[in-house]
Amino acid sequence: MKLATIASGGSDGQLVVVSPDGARFLAAPAPTLQAALEDWANMEPELRALATRLADGEGNPLDPAQCRAPLPRAWQWLDGSAFSSHGALMQTAFKLPPIETSLPLMYQGLSDRFLGPIDDVPLPSEDEGIDFEGEFGVITDAVPMGVSADEAMARIRLIVQINDWSLRVIAPVEMKTGFGWIQAKPACSAAPFAVTPDALGEAWQDGRVALSLTVDLNGVRFGAAKGDAMTFGFHELIAHAAHSRSLPAGTIIGSGTVSNSDYRVVGSSCIAERRGIEMLDEGAPKTPFMRFGDRVRMEARGPDGGVLFGVIDQRVVRAGGVG
Amino acid sequence: MKLATIASGGSDGQLVVVSPDGARFLAAPAPTLQAALEDWANMEPELRALATRLADGEGNPLDPAQCRAPLPRAWQWLDGSAFSSHGALMQTAFKLPPIETSLPLMYQGLSDRFLGPIDDVPLPSEDEGIDFEGEFGVITDAVPMGVSADEAMARIRLIVQINDWSLRVIAPVEMKTGFGWIQAKPACSAAPFAVTPDALGEAWQDGRVALSLTVDLNGVRFGAAKGDAMTFGFHELIAHAAHSRSLPAGTIIGSGTVSNSDYRVVGSSCIAERRGIEMLDEGAPKTPFMRFGDRVRMEARGPDGGVLFGVIDQRVVRAGGVG
Repeated sequence: MKLATIASGGSDGQLVVVSPDGARFLAAPAPTLQAALEDWANMEPELRALATRLADGEGNPLDPAQCRAPLPRAWQWLDGSAFSSHGALMQTAFKLPPIETSLPLMYQGLSDRFLGPIDDVPLPSEDEGIDFEGEFGVITDAVPMGVSADEAMARIRLIVQINDWSLRVIAPVEMKTGFGWIQAKPACSAAPFAVTPDALGEAWQDGRVALSLTVDLNGVRFGAAKGDAMTFGFHELIAHAAHSRSLPAGTIIGSGTVSNSDYRVVGSSCIAERRGIEMLDEGAPKTPFMRFGDRVRMEARGPDGGVLFGVIDQRVVRAGGVG
Repeated sequence: MKLATIASGGSDGQLVVVSPDGARFLAAPAPTLQAALEDWANMEPELRALATRLADGEGNPLDPAQCRAPLPRAWQWLDGSAFSSHGALMQTAFKLPPIETSLPLMYQGLSDRFLGPIDDVPLPSEDEGIDFEGEFGVITDAVPMGVSADEAMARIRLIVQINDWSLRVIAPVEMKTGFGWIQAKPACSAAPFAVTPDALGEAWQDGRVALSLTVDLNGVRFGAAKGDAMTFGFHELIAHAAHSRSLPAGTIIGSGTVSNSDYRVVGSSCIAERRGIEMLDEGAPKTPFMRFGDRVRMEARGPDGGVLFGVIDQRVVRAGGVG
């Protein structure tokens, strides 16, 4: 089942169910995805009935420009960093010491807005190292404090695709405080479709998304790393997050930048990682960070060859100073 | 003007206006504080008219047990650490190197729930260094990206009192990752009343709360540090937060643990800080962290001698594993 949120004038948009090819939709009985998540046991059968009608050819044409982020705002966004090759390259790129921990890495991010898949991305300066981070993520049901990883697997309701915008000049400065990131992590973006785990078929493996995330920067292929190389699965990230807090329905948990150990073959899902590779291979970084007007496109093709989560295709622009 | 949120069955409660002594209330025309903040220009005159009637003796008796946190959940919670004596003592207590930055320290915290002023505080283990952190905070209007500190001052709508619960065994482990805190920062608590800056009179000074925050642990005075020793005022914390993001109406910004340089006289607003003092003065920490059943009480008295934000008085309990 594939869900989306279309613009409706309200802060949370209108939930719709989408055909497998993403071309048609039917309005959902719940007003918003957040409302559906808070009443999932009752809502899921109704949503799946609409999905069946869509698979049978019903529905209205869906204009991708109507789509917002599946959750235009969320009560919680916790982003992991579960790909070890990404971590190693970031330490190279930023000349940071290795992070010595056997636990998942995770930070609490801004969740009051997720930019839509083709929204412009307003940022204050080209001098702050504008970078993208292609990720997969999950949206959870309510999760009790102290949940086990096994129990957490059953709380994963939807899978999403995210771009975690990052400002690389600020990031290492904030890391050194130990407090995590504020200025280095502006609002993230999300691809239009949130899908249930069953929609991934065999590509949903042990709480991981076994699909390539293709990333194009200004029309040139930048990376196509696979999502199943996570050191910890999403169920383990959820259990980590819920150690001393219960999670509200609609919590989004991110994988961190998708990265594979054969990064010289598959490429990268962020610029900083490529710069780390250049430092290793050529002694210095060469690839510049983004300038205003640059575009990044991200998509993942599912088992049927279709674009599973829809497309993120965004341009960075100078912030106008309004919220 | 003094506002509160009383339990109503819904996730966000019911907004009420409260008499200056906190003893009476009138229902507000906005359903929730979040709704009032999102339409403040229209709502403020109506709320102030109710405040005038309350000052004249109208209103229904307010049972403190009815009160939830002013914002039972918020779209954003950003907690500073603006008291330099606190930072120095924490580095002593946790044997951490000094944090070298001229910028405000700030982390993004869990905002999907704020515990009410007398709610029990469920936590997983007594072995994780259960501690309180007495703080002041502000609730903002919508704030544009790139706001100046001067402009930010005019976006401060309400002042609140917060207890930022912390798990001290986990905190330094998470700090060393650079990602900030997840497990070490469970849900915070809030005192019942949110007040407009004018209600502080001369105690609202350059974006700081010039009042003592008295803290009692199990009925024994633990500290009474004053809030005006912040290195950065709340307006400067807001400007820092809004560098690369706009802030939604209802963003809560915390001061960090209230702490004064004469801490041997005024005491502390958290246990870890007292343990740091003991390490300096006696070579080793003596004061234990909290056990299940322990209580902490916090209040601040305003210019008229009354309890300005109401009272936080909570007991820590073993988490039952449900959300």
